[in-house]
Amino acid sequence: MASFVHRLRVRYVECDMQGHVFNAHYFTWFDVANTEMWREAIGAFERINREGLDVVVAEAGARFRSGAHFDEDVDIEVALDPLTATSMTSRYRVRRDGELLVEGFLRHVCVSLRVHEKTPWPDWIRAAVAAYVQE
Amino acid sequence: MASFVHRLRVRYVECDMQGHVFNAHYFTWFDVANTEMWREAIGAFERINREGLDVVVAEAGARFRSGAHFDEDVDIEVALDPLTATSMTSRYRVRRDGELLVEGFLRHVCVSLRVHEKTPWPDWIRAAVAAYVQE
Amino acid sequence: MASFVHRLRVRYVECDMQGHVFNAHYFTWFDVANTEMWREAIGAFERINREGLDVVVAEAGARFRSGAHFDEDVDIEVALDPLTATSMTSRYRVRRDGELLVEGFLRHVCVSLRVHEKTPWPDWIRAAVAAYVQE
Amino acid sequence: MASFVHRLRVRYVECDMQGHVFNAHYFTWFDVANTEMWREAIGAFERINREGLDVVVAEAGARFRSGAHFDEDVDIEVALDPLTATSMTSRYRVRRDGELLVEGFLRHVCVSLRVHEKTPWPDWIRAAVAAYVQE
Repeated sequence: MASFVHRLRVRYVECDMQGHVFNAHYFTWFDVANTEMWREAIGAFERINREGLDVVVAEAGARFRSGAHFDEDVDIEVALDPLTATSMTSRYRVRRDGELLVEGFLRHVCVSLRVHEKTPWPDWIRAAVAAYVQE
Repeated sequence: MASFVHRLRVRYVECDMQGHVFNAHYFTWFDVANTEMWREAIGAFERINREGLDVVVAEAGARFRSGAHFDEDVDIEVALDPLTATSMTSRYRVRRDGELLVEGFLRHVCVSLRVHEKTPWPDWIRAAVAAYVQE
Repeated sequence: MASFVHRLRVRYVECDMQGHVFNAHYFTWFDVANTEMWREAIGAFERINREGLDVVVAEAGARFRSGAHFDEDVDIEVALDPLTATSMTSRYRVRRDGELLVEGFLRHVCVSLRVHEKTPWPDWIRAAVAAYVQE
Repeated sequence: MASFVHRLRVRYVECDMQGHVFNAHYFTWFDVANTEMWREAIGAFERINREGLDVVVAEAGARFRSGAHFDEDVDIEVALDPLTATSMTSRYRVRRDGELLVEGFLRHVCVSLRVHEKTPWPDWIRAAVAAYVQE
């Protein structure tokens, strides 16, 4: 049981006139953190494409408690729900100095590369991410 | 009981390497459509600031059924849940030629302009948006 | 000799903490306006791909005189320099109520679809955009 | 005579359907690299605001030689032209494994915080950035 943390620094372009990060950008951060987790757990993303598979986002959600500001460093924690046959739900907690700012999730679905039909996750992906699954 | 529809055309920059709109951008579209609904229902946003109030996003979510592509026209339908004391949940349906692509919501909260404490929606806002509330 | 004008409304997400549109987004607007001009002048973009060609951006520039603000309508005027063998330079003027806010350009290059080598613009494209060229 | 280099990793959202970074995003990267240079050279940005000054972008330009791709690490080198009374031109070179992909510039202008009138750079800023100026 592990979690993965990715740190990033807030960009000026990401902040809106209310002085903090615009809400949609947190979903981009979830994607960035997921990419980093995927690299550590699974390796190069190309492999899944080579096997005729792709990954799409089927659902996303977030609760915004407090806003991150320009130039602050934030930590994005990533953990996975137990995988279903074709879904992988990743959960994110964005923190600044330990304070929880935003929590959210993405639900990815494994699909065939061409016709984008739901396809079971291959065993090597299940094995690769097992350490990040939190019961 | 009415709904509001805002049409927009997909920008090249909004499409990712999978050939359709990147998921986080739909939340930006929800914000764009909400701004247009707000203008029609309530008028200039400045008034709420002049009254010492502001609006922040507390929660967001979306389900992605199918993707919009570059240069397509999409219609974003906006409807409101009945308001609570301090929350306004707006629901969005993104359609292309009638086909539902994405549905989602934003939950806005009325706050005091300075300290960002939850504050009841003023009556003139409740009255202004009443026509868009769907029981 | 004609010019093309595309109107758009400033999105909240495009405005930064200084209260106006973040500089990089004007380049996205140039691209949006160019797409609209291209549609009117040339038609569907797919045709150039079907002929084994593609278009890439080789150079961009802008001078910022004044900023556009949230919810304002701006007009983006597009005109073309005379085409060279492989280049097409489009010039943009962003105005609000006639006031010039930003002027800039994009230089597109015609390339082969596969290896992205410079290729002369086909005659049908030269003919299609002739009306937008300003000597 | 020094230069400053900021490394960043290409985000999926930054890549377009042509498979590389959309041109406008390089200008955002220039801003990100400039922020990092500013921190190292000058320190917290708030100080300039406290002295009643602000900085705006007056001009920007870039030449695109080759594109950065998703998940690649790129190095953004920043160097300054000699400052004029009110302008600071920063020059950027984006490289991947030493290969020059994009070069560009931003011209910032020092302005008064309130009315945004051009104002000479204060001496402490001239001194702070002197090491980054390339004749």
